[in-house]
Amino acid sequence: MRKVAVFDSMLRDGAQGEGISFSVLDKMKIVRELDGLGVDYIEAGNPGSNPKDLEFFEKVKDYQFEHAKLAAFGATRRKGIRAADDAQVASIMAAGTQVVTIFGKSWDFHVTEVIRTTLEENLEMIADTVQYFKAHGKEVVYDAEHFFDGYKANPEYALRTLKAAEAAGADCICLCETNGGALTSEVYQITKAVVDALQVPVGIHTHNDGGMAVANTVAAVQAGAAHVQGTLLGIGERCGNANLSTVIADLQLKCDVQCIPDDQMAKLTEAVRRVAEVSNLTLDNFMPYVGKSAFAHKGGMHADGVIKAPKAFEHVVPESVGNERRFPMSEVAGKGTVLKKLQALYPGLDKDSPQIKALADQVKELEHRGYQFEGADGSFEVLAKREFENFPKFFDIETFKVIEEQTERDGRLKASAMIKVFVDGVSEITAAEGDGPVNALDQALRKALEVFYPQISEVHLTDYKVRVLDSHMSTAAFVRVLIESSDGTDYWTTVGVSTDIIEASVIALADSIDYKLLKGN
Amino acid sequence: MRKVAVFDSMLRDGAQGEGISFSVLDKMKIVRELDGLGVDYIEAGNPGSNPKDLEFFEKVKDYQFEHAKLAAFGATRRKGIRAADDAQVASIMAAGTQVVTIFGKSWDFHVTEVIRTTLEENLEMIADTVQYFKAHGKEVVYDAEHFFDGYKANPEYALRTLKAAEAAGADCICLCETNGGALTSEVYQITKAVVDALQVPVGIHTHNDGGMAVANTVAAVQAGAAHVQGTLLGIGERCGNANLSTVIADLQLKCDVQCIPDDQMAKLTEAVRRVAEVSNLTLDNFMPYVGKSAFAHKGGMHADGVIKAPKAFEHVVPESVGNERRFPMSEVAGKGTVLKKLQALYPGLDKDSPQIKALADQVKELEHRGYQFEGADGSFEVLAKREFENFPKFFDIETFKVIEEQTERDGRLKASAMIKVFVDGVSEITAAEGDGPVNALDQALRKALEVFYPQISEVHLTDYKVRVLDSHMSTAAFVRVLIESSDGTDYWTTVGVSTDIIEASVIALADSIDYKLLKGN
Repeated sequence: MRKVAVFDSMLRDGAQGEGISFSVLDKMKIVRELDGLGVDYIEAGNPGSNPKDLEFFEKVKDYQFEHAKLAAFGATRRKGIRAADDAQVASIMAAGTQVVTIFGKSWDFHVTEVIRTTLEENLEMIADTVQYFKAHGKEVVYDAEHFFDGYKANPEYALRTLKAAEAAGADCICLCETNGGALTSEVYQITKAVVDALQVPVGIHTHNDGGMAVANTVAAVQAGAAHVQGTLLGIGERCGNANLSTVIADLQLKCDVQCIPDDQMAKLTEAVRRVAEVSNLTLDNFMPYVGKSAFAHKGGMHADGVIKAPKAFEHVVPESVGNERRFPMSEVAGKGTVLKKLQALYPGLDKDSPQIKALADQVKELEHRGYQFEGADGSFEVLAKREFENFPKFFDIETFKVIEEQTERDGRLKASAMIKVFVDGVSEITAAEGDGPVNALDQALRKALEVFYPQISEVHLTDYKVRVLDSHMSTAAFVRVLIESSDGTDYWTTVGVSTDIIEASVIALADSIDYKLLKGN
Repeated sequence: MRKVAVFDSMLRDGAQGEGISFSVLDKMKIVRELDGLGVDYIEAGNPGSNPKDLEFFEKVKDYQFEHAKLAAFGATRRKGIRAADDAQVASIMAAGTQVVTIFGKSWDFHVTEVIRTTLEENLEMIADTVQYFKAHGKEVVYDAEHFFDGYKANPEYALRTLKAAEAAGADCICLCETNGGALTSEVYQITKAVVDALQVPVGIHTHNDGGMAVANTVAAVQAGAAHVQGTLLGIGERCGNANLSTVIADLQLKCDVQCIPDDQMAKLTEAVRRVAEVSNLTLDNFMPYVGKSAFAHKGGMHADGVIKAPKAFEHVVPESVGNERRFPMSEVAGKGTVLKKLQALYPGLDKDSPQIKALADQVKELEHRGYQFEGADGSFEVLAKREFENFPKFFDIETFKVIEEQTERDGRLKASAMIKVFVDGVSEITAAEGDGPVNALDQALRKALEVFYPQISEVHLTDYKVRVLDSHMSTAAFVRVLIESSDGTDYWTTVGVSTDIIEASVIALADSIDYKLLKGN
């Protein structure tokens, strides 16, 4: 099986994505994930443009890499001086990495109009800088910036820049599709021409401005590239870089090209989700292979088809990338979908029972009011168990009051909540303080119910999300609150909808407690 | 310029995306947007599988289409009966559309294993159904489901299914890459073989399971396809369909292929954003061409480069698709980025002034605390004007109190807020009720300040978003609140961060009022 080197740039090009900001601690966590996944190179920053990166490079020296090599990124030396005298070159060296990525110009227009020097001086800048790092024992990846545009404008000069890097000893020459606009057919043809013209391994670095970053990367590998750059989540400048999780899965599962060790493939989904969590990014549900919806079958016909013959509607087995098949609820779902979800709860269920129809009707009615059970398995399970097990109400909330006040100018805010509940005709009234009204109410509710149900003390909120529905309407907007809870063993998500954020939160909190009590441990 | 027909399936395949649910009113709005944009076909539902669609088809009969033709979607007749006797076929006919899309099986495995009939009967089902609709005067698009997998398994049979549809009079034969896993190279080769084998126009319908839906669609057009299917936002079953906004821009701006009228191209971004709004979807900022970040230059070097030579870092001119170039704030941004943003406010600014450094330092410090100004231009402008114009504080919030209570079991919630403000040493205390605590507080704050600043009465909240930061931490989580306000003329967004949702909201509300007062009209 042919092997391609995988080069992740989450911490450098990825950090240039809008809305992305990594702390040094975040970066350390991401390095561990990428190394654990088995990527070959981790590009971790540009010490010359971002001094915060130097702190990271200092800290990472204590980390023992299992698989990956670390790379620092920077430009060729400036015009008119020697590489040895260039402060930016020195800062790359100071990072102390085994590998350096040096980017230079391939496009004649860019040389004369952006860095404003001569075409010959640009070749010397490339050669001098690569030689300098080779002389200091570094592995050098040469990033040919704007290569495809440069090649289209002046193929002869663009190739000369690569040959300058090759002659200077670069270990890999990576063709960068910097503005992200090339078509797959162009990337294939131009990469092929370069692979034929050079001796050194050729790499590919694409952006997604035309929506083709992944296809362009795979096409370049088909044309002979032996090194792929991207970012694990696809984040990066403008529309992002090639999504490495997709590229890895495409190449390894479909093109007979080895990217990461075989036994790591099934960890792909988990690694992507953990890196998204560290990055504080909401992962796109639709993301190929690893997204929550990647193997979700919603259409009634599809869901039935999948049950009969999975390969008809799934391009790969979800387990091969550590993901899972799902059958979310919704109005276009056939009864088979409700059934499939319920079968996990009630094996041997009668699929034509009136209870299933009643449950499906309830789900439709609630969805009409703004509920959504796709992200709230906990609330769905509580709803189903109410229908199928006819369990008694665990508690009633009789009255409550939440107060939030600031008592002096620039003073601290104080939130408190008072609540009265009934359990089997016995009342309990109590109060609690908290960080904000929802937190205070959550504390008070659980404090009151712990008197009757001590196991609730194990439950705590792990996430809280608010979504405004119909925000384009001028009338009162509905809000949907999603609450994730955990008792240390399991995690579950519940949902509430109301025009009032507190009411929506109370509904979701009450479902969460019902879920815990139904769970029975 | 070669013309390709554009066929949007937002309302059918798009509605099968997880989390997507359209009301009849939503569908009407989306039809208007798509028609206004100039797409050729709008596939609007599957009346056989979703009875709600029939209500829509009834309602849409009153709409005068400017450009597009409406299509209803459904399957070939069932095995063993005539098309004329099939209830599902009748429901497609009942939709009353000018165009019908009929899907049938191309993959021998799928015929024998999923619908469980003979290969010959499948050919008859296709021919009979197409003939039936042609005999009733319909334009028929035949969707060859699973065509690429079918062709790879048994090319001879897969082609026979297409020829059955062609012989029966289908107006277009669309090759569906149903499970979304084909590589671009395969799609190109197979589409080319089909185009060579048929007389009738060939279409392409792709999914994004391998991250290649757009590239596969463009490759199929390069191979001779004359009809492209997708969804304007890229939503759809599992990982979504080909994103039509990307496909349209790629083909029309780069491949010399006409998709929509030239004068509509500049409306693309606005149309996509309005459709996302109607769909209650947060548009992916990274989306090619139309995303908020599509022309955002964050890296310091890139931002400088773009100012010197836009074409070096932009594959197309942002205005060509109605989008705009942006320079968001952030730690990796060079000073040029802050400058560019400030130059709109203060033309002729001294770029080396200590005020710019002071502002950049403030932005960094606030970002460190969880603020983000990329989505909060209003708060950035207030911050900049405080630094550059040294304006007096418009008001102080002395004290406030928010109460939310439920006074009886299952009773309605009541939220009220009391607030005391000072303006130039004069105090005003007032109270208001609202839908929830934030709404009550917003009402009370504006009521108190209107006494001094009557122009505030024009301002109202148009959106409210809450994001929990560090939700993976077990300690108290910070929340970031984003508020969008409007005075009927302008829209602006402000941000607040705190461990307490009410405090974060108050900060963002106060910024919003400062913005309005600074605006001066």
